[in-house]
Amino acid sequence: MKKKAADYSLYLVTDRGLSRGRTTPEIVQAAVRGGVTCVQLREKNCSPREFIEQAILIQKFLKEHHIPLIINDRVDVAQAVKADGVHLGQSDMPLEMAKAILKDSMIIGISAQSVQHAVEAEKKGADYIGVGTIYPTLTKDDTSSPLGTEGLREIRKNVKIPIVAIGGLNKENSGDVIQNGADGIAVVSAIVSADDPEQTARELREIITGAKTS
Amino acid sequence: MKKKAADYSLYLVTDRGLSRGRTTPEIVQAAVRGGVTCVQLREKNCSPREFIEQAILIQKFLKEHHIPLIINDRVDVAQAVKADGVHLGQSDMPLEMAKAILKDSMIIGISAQSVQHAVEAEKKGADYIGVGTIYPTLTKDDTSSPLGTEGLREIRKNVKIPIVAIGGLNKENSGDVIQNGADGIAVVSAIVSADDPEQTARELREIITGAKTS
Ligand code: NI
Repeated sequence: MKKKAADYSLYLVTDRGLSRGRTTPEIVQAAVRGGVTCVQLREKNCSPREFIEQAILIQKFLKEHHIPLIINDRVDVAQAVKADGVHLGQSDMPLEMAKAILKDSMIIGISAQSVQHAVEAEKKGADYIGVGTIYPTLTKDDTSSPLGTEGLREIRKNVKIPIVAIGGLNKENSGDVIQNGADGIAVVSAIVSADDPEQTARELREIITGAKTS
Repeated sequence: MKKKAADYSLYLVTDRGLSRGRTTPEIVQAAVRGGVTCVQLREKNCSPREFIEQAILIQKFLKEHHIPLIINDRVDVAQAVKADGVHLGQSDMPLEMAKAILKDSMIIGISAQSVQHAVEAEKKGADYIGVGTIYPTLTKDDTSSPLGTEGLREIRKNVKIPIVAIGGLNKENSGDVIQNGADGIAVVSAIVSADDPEQTARELREIITGAKTS
């Protein structure tokens, strides 16, 4: 099985803990109706079996809408559900090991907090990088100092693979981030905690499309 | 790669938190010198990358001594380090999914707390079952009531695959457990918390060998 091409423009990362009581499938469906182009399932506080069940719950809907499903951290869960990809942080399995397991069957994304991370990920064959934190955020338990648009531009100069910016992104700053070199915007709380996730996704998508064509 | 046969007689499950400041490689080396026949690496409170690093740290020594390395929970980590097997609890990846990923390349062990679990695991192709909790223990965050030797015998009557008993096992009760149908004894604190893990492993191994030949 060969990996699919993906549109990273508006990349939703789930977080049950920030979803204000709504289930992950509810959030995902609303977000996709609004215009999310890619979904990463990130379920930190549940058993591996529950994580798999959540993936299966959203997968059929995502397939119908041709939206790639990316699994956070666990290569085995991605294999088990035949997801479209896996996203690995700097404390997760090293990229070369994941590639040895997956060969070219799946998208592999890597979190990059620096130019060095980004260049290394590209050299080792990552399909995209998640670059952040861009702006301060409470979502990720991440102590690195924010990169800002300046740090993002510096990374953009050094790699050719798609950059998905993450961290503190919202309607106010997403246009700027695209204009400073990101191919897509990853959001967690901006959508999962929104009063209206569908409408928020729609507005974000419009901003991104606008910034890309301006 | 075809999976190896394993001797489950004295099966060490690591637990850094109970090792009283000694490292997992220190404990594993002492335990193997004492006579442990199988090692399961279980590292619950570390990153996936650290888990992989721990596995690699103990793997060379284990290979030299022909002791199988079993990885707890993570099929992908087992694949990444080319371990001998993976152990899956009832909240981990379902056995059929793990088999679909691993084919016949690795030992797959399944935790069974009941006859139903045991029979299902055997039917679906588990290589062994970890049966417990046998006696009350503080080691596993496990709320099921202890099976005792009676529950163990009941499971023994219903499955043919190897049974590794776990939960509250020590020098006093391990002989009994073998005589009630277990092929092996899994221990955590009895070895990792022992003043002298090597000597304790040696004594346990003698008890098990004695019980098997009596
Ligand atoms: Ni030696």
